[in-house]
Amino acid sequence: MEFQVIQSCVDSRARLGEIVTPHGRFETPVFMPVGTQGSVKALSSDDLENVGVEVILANTYHLYLRPGHHVVEKLGGLHRFMSWNAPILTDSGGFQVYSLARLRSISEDGVTFQSHLDGKKHFVGPKEAMDIQTALGADMIMSFDECAPYPAEYGYVKNSVRLTTLWAERCLEHKSAENQALFGIVQGGMFPDLREESAKSLVDMNFQGYALGGLSVGEDRETRKLVIEKTVPFLPEEKPVYLMGVGKPEDIVDAVLLGVDMFDCVLPTRNARNGTLFTPQGPLVIKNARYADDPGPIDDACNCYTCAHFSRAYLRHLFMAKELLSYRLNSIHNLYYYTHFMSEIRNALREGRLAEYCQRFYEGRSGSPDP
Amino acid sequence: MEFQVIQSCVDSRARLGEIVTPHGRFETPVFMPVGTQGSVKALSSDDLENVGVEVILANTYHLYLRPGHHVVEKLGGLHRFMSWNAPILTDSGGFQVYSLARLRSISEDGVTFQSHLDGKKHFVGPKEAMDIQTALGADMIMSFDECAPYPAEYGYVKNSVRLTTLWAERCLEHKSAENQALFGIVQGGMFPDLREESAKSLVDMNFQGYALGGLSVGEDRETRKLVIEKTVPFLPEEKPVYLMGVGKPEDIVDAVLLGVDMFDCVLPTRNARNGTLFTPQGPLVIKNARYADDPGPIDDACNCYTCAHFSRAYLRHLFMAKELLSYRLNSIHNLYYYTHFMSEIRNALREGRLAEYCQRFYEGRSGSPDP
Repeated sequence: MEFQVIQSCVDSRARLGEIVTPHGRFETPVFMPVGTQGSVKALSSDDLENVGVEVILANTYHLYLRPGHHVVEKLGGLHRFMSWNAPILTDSGGFQVYSLARLRSISEDGVTFQSHLDGKKHFVGPKEAMDIQTALGADMIMSFDECAPYPAEYGYVKNSVRLTTLWAERCLEHKSAENQALFGIVQGGMFPDLREESAKSLVDMNFQGYALGGLSVGEDRETRKLVIEKTVPFLPEEKPVYLMGVGKPEDIVDAVLLGVDMFDCVLPTRNARNGTLFTPQGPLVIKNARYADDPGPIDDACNCYTCAHFSRAYLRHLFMAKELLSYRLNSIHNLYYYTHFMSEIRNALREGRLAEYCQRFYEGRSGSPDP
Repeated sequence: MEFQVIQSCVDSRARLGEIVTPHGRFETPVFMPVGTQGSVKALSSDDLENVGVEVILANTYHLYLRPGHHVVEKLGGLHRFMSWNAPILTDSGGFQVYSLARLRSISEDGVTFQSHLDGKKHFVGPKEAMDIQTALGADMIMSFDECAPYPAEYGYVKNSVRLTTLWAERCLEHKSAENQALFGIVQGGMFPDLREESAKSLVDMNFQGYALGGLSVGEDRETRKLVIEKTVPFLPEEKPVYLMGVGKPEDIVDAVLLGVDMFDCVLPTRNARNGTLFTPQGPLVIKNARYADDPGPIDDACNCYTCAHFSRAYLRHLFMAKELLSYRLNSIHNLYYYTHFMSEIRNALREGRLAEYCQRFYEGRSGSPDP
């Protein structure tokens, strides 16, 4: 993987960048839709391409449990398995072990846990996380971290930073595939000094990219902004910065201005399945009765397949009738909103007018159709 | 609507035909996928087009209850509502009133029933069935019939034929839209003399097409063949014959040979959602463990999108993980199987080799992957 900054913003830490991977290039800031189980829910690879998606994320924890990384490897790796011939990033599985699995016990070597699917016992540590991710074959992979709960005491978080640093080192030692770029994950909870400590230790190890983990776990927007602001300056400018699990469009704008290059979140696809649709004015709740005979599209200015073909009335009908097509059409719209939004941010950066774009973005969201 | 026979089979009653509607033409024998609630489950209009679907069926009962025919009418009719710019046939709602609704009471005027959605009371008779179908705006519409249960006594079925004939006459009187073709529905249960009586009465009224109702209700294959064989000869050769709710590929071949031109059934899409996939050799059950690491497509010889891009292993994974994409990819394959199969039948008819095709078809199904 190669990363380069194409243009920096004069008013903020934001930058336009480019990442080149064995499966193609994309520009940053970028949003990666989440394909948890080897499928971005309700969408095919063609749908993703048509929506303008250039890179996706898949979850190591889920694919390790089902169908198993050896199956994916035997089938030619994740790209071929899911017929997605563009960049993929896999997380380390750490976050899901803490949030989904049961009966965890953490040692210096890794985590023993029970599968949320069948209760079977598993052990994953830094070595296993590398082996699994090598088998899956993503272009960008993550070191195995300990993600502290929120809220957490200073002492707990300090130890979690220590473990994360130790495991990061072991991941680097154990990583085998030359064509996979390994990212270190900065932890440290909401404590700026621990974030600094974590960032500095990882930077000393020289990862190919750096992620901010342990955020979007329940903290408020201002706290998150503060943590990002106090962490990014300790990361090298020539490496990409990835904020894991974030987020809402406004959270993304916040973080872009603070120097973040990569994002992932289940929000657009999950909201789509719940019938909450993104518009520049804010969320639109499609089940609302006032859309029952509304002939207009979700968003007049949107060029997605859904808005080009279907009325709010039809989309409401599909949603109320629990038709499977509802989830796909809504997901197409929401992901198009995200890819279009990120491309607007990149264009604003390219043309030196990001500050202006962000101001209009924040102002535009005051008139939400369904506040 | 115009229908013409292009070529007749010398060995059977089968014929190649053409139907021209206000929304386009298609050849017969044809299979119509079922878009119950204004959506062929899991598929968009583009998917249907790509799969080669040329005409679909929608259910009057479901659309009447939700979103309501007035809503569909206000939104420009069913074609525009669901963004399907090709022929549509709507059923009369009769079959669903008997199979889905609760607390029915049948009079000379029609049926009073409770909605299966919210228990609200409704009345639908021949007049209402015409009004609703006019509002929906399909190219082909059905007269309102009384579909006898199976098994049913001779006396019950005789009365059901009487009512169906009476209502058919009222439908003809009440039908208002010139650009909609009205089909009469032959009833008569499994009694050839009642089928003959029903057919003759309807033919006297001169409908634009004739449907065989009250089949595929639990009778065995031989009984169904006998009923079709004893009914079709009483229908005019210059009108299309539509066998409602049928069926399996072998049932379709049976009926084509007996002179049937049109078919509809939920089988391909419902089976898709249950993970049962059609192949020329017979059904393949994708959840079977032996497909867990099978790199091949569902069917080597199939040219559908699913077979071109995805392995049995991936499709099994999606199915086991209950991924929404599973339902769509499986539905694309099964409907492609049906449209391809019908097109093979038409080509065999065109080239005067239907008997040979049917023999190979029946023989080919002896080696089902998952018997």
